[in-house]
Amino acid sequence: MQRVCVIGLGLMGGSLGLVLRQRGLAAHVVGCGRQALLSRAVEMGAIDSGYTDAGQAVAESDFVFLCTPVETSIRLMREIAPRLKPGALVTDVGSTKAAFAEAAREVFGATANDRVLPGHPLAGRELSGLEHASADLYEGCVWVLTPLAESATAAHEQLRATIEALGARVVYATPEEHDRTLAYTSHLPQMLSTALALTLEDEFGAANPALEIHAGGLRTMLRLASSDPVMWEQIAASNPQNIVAALERFEGELRKLRESFGDPEFRRRFETAREFAKRLRG
Amino acid sequence: MQRVCVIGLGLMGGSLGLVLRQRGLAAHVVGCGRQALLSRAVEMGAIDSGYTDAGQAVAESDFVFLCTPVETSIRLMREIAPRLKPGALVTDVGSTKAAFAEAAREVFGATANDRVLPGHPLAGRELSGLEHASADLYEGCVWVLTPLAESATAAHEQLRATIEALGARVVYATPEEHDRTLAYTSHLPQMLSTALALTLEDEFGAANPALEIHAGGLRTMLRLASSDPVMWEQIAASNPQNIVAALERFEGELRKLRESFGDPEFRRRFETAREFAKRLRG
Repeated sequence: MQRVCVIGLGLMGGSLGLVLRQRGLAAHVVGCGRQALLSRAVEMGAIDSGYTDAGQAVAESDFVFLCTPVETSIRLMREIAPRLKPGALVTDVGSTKAAFAEAAREVFGATANDRVLPGHPLAGRELSGLEHASADLYEGCVWVLTPLAESATAAHEQLRATIEALGARVVYATPEEHDRTLAYTSHLPQMLSTALALTLEDEFGAANPALEIHAGGLRTMLRLASSDPVMWEQIAASNPQNIVAALERFEGELRKLRESFGDPEFRRRFETAREFAKRLRG
Repeated sequence: MQRVCVIGLGLMGGSLGLVLRQRGLAAHVVGCGRQALLSRAVEMGAIDSGYTDAGQAVAESDFVFLCTPVETSIRLMREIAPRLKPGALVTDVGSTKAAFAEAAREVFGATANDRVLPGHPLAGRELSGLEHASADLYEGCVWVLTPLAESATAAHEQLRATIEALGARVVYATPEEHDRTLAYTSHLPQMLSTALALTLEDEFGAANPALEIHAGGLRTMLRLASSDPVMWEQIAASNPQNIVAALERFEGELRKLRESFGDPEFRRRFETAREFAKRLRG
């Protein structure tokens, strides 16, 4: 890639800058973020130069990666649209895609597919921030691309090739398929971990010694509960119907499981769940 | 310890035999299980000798560890009671304690506290079976002891010292406290993982390519779903009221979280959950 702009220098953006520069995948990486972040990102080698203003940052870039929470990315896309270079391609790393895709169509109209290719690398962590950025964050992850139309441009192909060069595996889906699937495979698990933490906090409080009595399974199930509240607020706000549908399905399964205590059905449910988990975990 | 009998040669019993023998913590370890298991356990060095009959296995032992699912352990305790050596102490590793403690009081009456000290090492894995046994399974784990009365006998103290010599940390609780706490810190997380697997299986089926689109968080949340159905059937059957209470509390928290989408309360809940998870995970 020629000149790449990374807007948002947290875990995702910082890691992207690091790997693009370390592997020589971009001629120049321009960052955009608060001044203190820009300085740290330059020191770490995540960007070559930086701007605090998004319009200035994108002005000469050929590819723009929006690496902020989904609602922030939508706002920034509107803001940078008039400043983009002709032929520049915008992508993002947001956790939901339909709202971003819809905004792209509004902003760019008939040229939306030429200007925007929404994306989502499934490489998040419960840790966030530039200090956790790493050049191998995307190694081996699935990176979903959700094109706005069927025709791929040369810039689309270049973006796909670059993502593969980061070590990620590209999977295509429509924005709607993406959001419906992620509601089950990402947003639902997150809500369960958070609600589990809230249940334990409510039942025991933070300092209760009863909490000594737990094993590794609890720690595992609470890992996601450490995720960033602001990011999740925006995910929930941008995909509420799918998440609520997934939660209701889950609540039904949990109720059926609870009602099968002492019944042969209980063991059958556990066996089905075990088979599924084994297949998924490989 | 002098002569120790380990009944049930799965993950827990096999690991116990291995570490007792490797660290020279018992003069002789007698195993009890199916013939094929006994041969494998002798080969692995988990036991010195073995019997398929529990009554024969315990006849000359000073300490008896029941390492089977909780209902099986209750049945075996009744079966071996008449065959125990005078002064022998029985313990177990079952996941719930009140039902086992109640059975001990029924079987042994006024001498129950002298003959039985129920226990629960919080060292399970989603893997089970002798083939996964390891001498370091108990290293660093919490091992809950739930005495039937306040007075500790010399055999109780010897059991405690041996458990500490395995690398575990002993925590005392009443059987009822144990079961109520574990309903939240172990049984609830298990039900969530299992119900999550069932929801995904129901929504996508096993082979649906949509399942490609998932990240590490889902795999984490499905780890427990691989647990042994038979063990969990017995846990659910022996602690239903506490588990149902924990599930209902959880269902309430999940509903409140779902109803707070788009409200400032949502972020506050996420922040509370994150703080709790951080404190627990240290």
